Amino acid sequence: MTLRIGLIGLGVVGAETARTLASHAAMIEARAGQAVRVTEVSARDRSKDRGIDLAGYVWRDDPLALAASPDVDLVVELIGGAEGMALEAAKTALAGGKHFVTANKAMIAHHGARLATMAEANNVSLAFEAAVAGGIPVLKALKEGLAGNRIDRVYGILNGTCNFILTEMFETGRAFDDVLAEAQALGYAEADPTFDIDGIDAAQKLAILAALAFGGAPDFAAVETSGIRNVTDLDIAFAKELGYRIRLLGVAVRSDMGIEQRVSACMAPANAALARIDGVTNAVMIEGVPVGHSLLVGPGAGGGATASAVVADIVDIASGRGGRGFGAAAASLGGFKTTPATARTGAYYVRLMVIDRPGVIAEVAGIFGRHGVSIESMLQHGRQPEEPVPVVLTTHETTEATMQAVATDLAAVAAAIAPPILMRIESL
Amino acid sequence: MTLRIGLIGLGVVGAETARTLASHAAMIEARAGQAVRVTEVSARDRSKDRGIDLAGYVWRDDPLALAASPDVDLVVELIGGAEGMALEAAKTALAGGKHFVTANKAMIAHHGARLATMAEANNVSLAFEAAVAGGIPVLKALKEGLAGNRIDRVYGILNGTCNFILTEMFETGRAFDDVLAEAQALGYAEADPTFDIDGIDAAQKLAILAALAFGGAPDFAAVETSGIRNVTDLDIAFAKELGYRIRLLGVAVRSDMGIEQRVSACMAPANAALARIDGVTNAVMIEGVPVGHSLLVGPGAGGGATASAVVADIVDIASGRGGRGFGAAAASLGGFKTTPATARTGAYYVRLMVIDRPGVIAEVAGIFGRHGVSIESMLQHGRQPEEPVPVVLTTHETTEATMQAVATDLAAVAAAIAPPILMRIESL
Repeated sequence: MTLRIGLIGLGVVGAETARTLASHAAMIEARAGQAVRVTEVSARDRSKDRGIDLAGYVWRDDPLALAASPDVDLVVELIGGAEGMALEAAKTALAGGKHFVTANKAMIAHHGARLATMAEANNVSLAFEAAVAGGIPVLKALKEGLAGNRIDRVYGILNGTCNFILTEMFETGRAFDDVLAEAQALGYAEADPTFDIDGIDAAQKLAILAALAFGGAPDFAAVETSGIRNVTDLDIAFAKELGYRIRLLGVAVRSDMGIEQRVSACMAPANAALARIDGVTNAVMIEGVPVGHSLLVGPGAGGGATASAVVADIVDIASGRGGRGFGAAAASLGGFKTTPATARTGAYYVRLMVIDRPGVIAEVAGIFGRHGVSIESMLQHGRQPEEPVPVVLTTHETTEATMQAVATDLAAVAAAIAPPILMRIESL
Repeated sequence: MTLRIGLIGLGVVGAETARTLASHAAMIEARAGQAVRVTEVSARDRSKDRGIDLAGYVWRDDPLALAASPDVDLVVELIGGAEGMALEAAKTALAGGKHFVTANKAMIAHHGARLATMAEANNVSLAFEAAVAGGIPVLKALKEGLAGNRIDRVYGILNGTCNFILTEMFETGRAFDDVLAEAQALGYAEADPTFDIDGIDAAQKLAILAALAFGGAPDFAAVETSGIRNVTDLDIAFAKELGYRIRLLGVAVRSDMGIEQRVSACMAPANAALARIDGVTNAVMIEGVPVGHSLLVGPGAGGGATASAVVADIVDIASGRGGRGFGAAAASLGGFKTTPATARTGAYYVRLMVIDRPGVIAEVAGIFGRHGVSIESMLQHGRQPEEPVPVVLTTHETTEATMQAVATDLAAVAAAIAPPILMRIESL
């Protein structure tokens, strides 16, 4: 018996997937209980040198012809994009009774529940371990390895580009734009870095993690998303002084009021495991009952890590344990109730640039007091009368709604020269 | 449909397992696709208060009667011990066509392959995720999540007691015996701590990890095992000075010459992820192709972490993806070829206590030179003529066999007052 694979997309990940399936064929057959072999491939340019021999595969110019081929049992989609050809290929494959494996986080975050329903209706598997932090089997951990737990919080470093930039800023004291340019030169950031640095990539991954953790459909629109574009070297330095590291965190947390999902630059206590994750590495912490904490750390991108996850999904399906993409039955994947802002609590870091003149600190502190927000610490270094200086405050636990009101009042302080910078301080 | 569980052993883990299955019943049914219910229990003392209501369960004084009960589909064994009742219960359950789930690392390390053969012959599952670092689904990661990889090395912190002791010694500068007594008072170490501090517990776990990583039967006898009893506060201090942390590491590594398995106190570079794992936490690093590195970190012991793994195994079996305990077919689980000592390489930390007199350093250095071992650094602090002083050397890569010869010669140095202390420096 042989499971016949059709591969759509032969970029870095596609080529590595083909290479791994070929070079580890005997081991994979032993683990899967049947042979696994790529039979058909489709990509944009047939003549491009990818370091793999395409001679043994049927070439398809049209990905949809591959997705509909009678000689393919499982379609792997590695072209990306929430809609368009990727989605058409998924629908064609699933409707035709073929298993479907993808690394496409955008498509799963936006259309995952619908595709899961199609997979179930056609009695095939939909699998997307590669969509979130490929080098760490975190979706499997949520669905299976920790299946006995009530998950209360899942959070982590979900974007290697941002973590690289924040690590470099911390270690060198350089400014954001400068380090972004370096990341682009190194190939860690795209020419158009929006998708990474504005938190969209992390938000798609978080929506998928939350769906698995809390048993719902991915709800990308419910993820409050911001990125690291406004993180300054000044805030990095204050973080260090206060015993924190700034990290772009994706956080999904369950409360009595619903599910809260957000991606933002946060202050992480310097001694927390996630604060110590440096560079392009991804890390996901899962908190559950009865397990407590379980942390997975590894490469989140790149050909090897992503191909590892794609092949694992294929082996699962070949072994007969492909199961359901979201663990639970697709029909049970409802929407989440989102925790309202008035019920979302946290501690905050606040930086306000003010003209250094008598009475400003009292005015600023008074605003916190009037809103009932307790100040944990305050920093104002040096004196520069009539010059702009940063005033930094950290708060005790308060609600997000209250902090927004504080921010509005702070922006109206006469001596303030810019709206305040707010960052959550996460308890990790 | 209901999967009926028989639970042997109602200690901390057994009670937590029963509690989790009961309190998370609806969620587990949704994930497993069928109800999962404890029907029978067996333990030594029926009247003991365990914080759970036993009224709904059939009580069995005889564990083997439970293992043979027609009203049980899956037996969970949580009494421990490589032989005796645990092994009898396993054999009875498997021979009777019942699935068998255990947290018993000793039994799996010693009899795992035999039990896997029985499970296969009877078409049932043998599962033991809880046997290794319960809070992290590392066996599932090796068998499934990273199934497409050729694993080259798996290593980690496999014993929380030792890691707690080493962390405390590092942070406080206190001596081993002192910290061990504290660990015992805190319940982190047993009254007889041999099993933990001499590395046996870690070696059993490593044998299981190696079996899964490299596709063989667990070979406990092949694990070179030593513990932390001889780690002194002096070595902890030198480690710090040299940029290392001492960790009890289990390391299993594949080479062209075979498989090497060892548990020992090692020097870990201070900036390596494993060196930063403090306290009772467990951590396992998996190195493979194409994934690169994947690290899992979490609680290795305690009721919650272990019950989490036990219940995950149960959910897997209830979902029909129970599979095979060692991933591959039991018939394929041969013995490993062990890498010979002459082919095992590493860098070393060496400490020799000598009487401080002229010519000693030259004599010591000469021994390394004669054996062709290249010295990376040497430390001798202060001068105390005719008093004992430590001389510390670190080496470049050499073979284990060569270092044993160096150690023999060092012990024969006239000014040496004790045999040298050797510790591997691990590249992590």
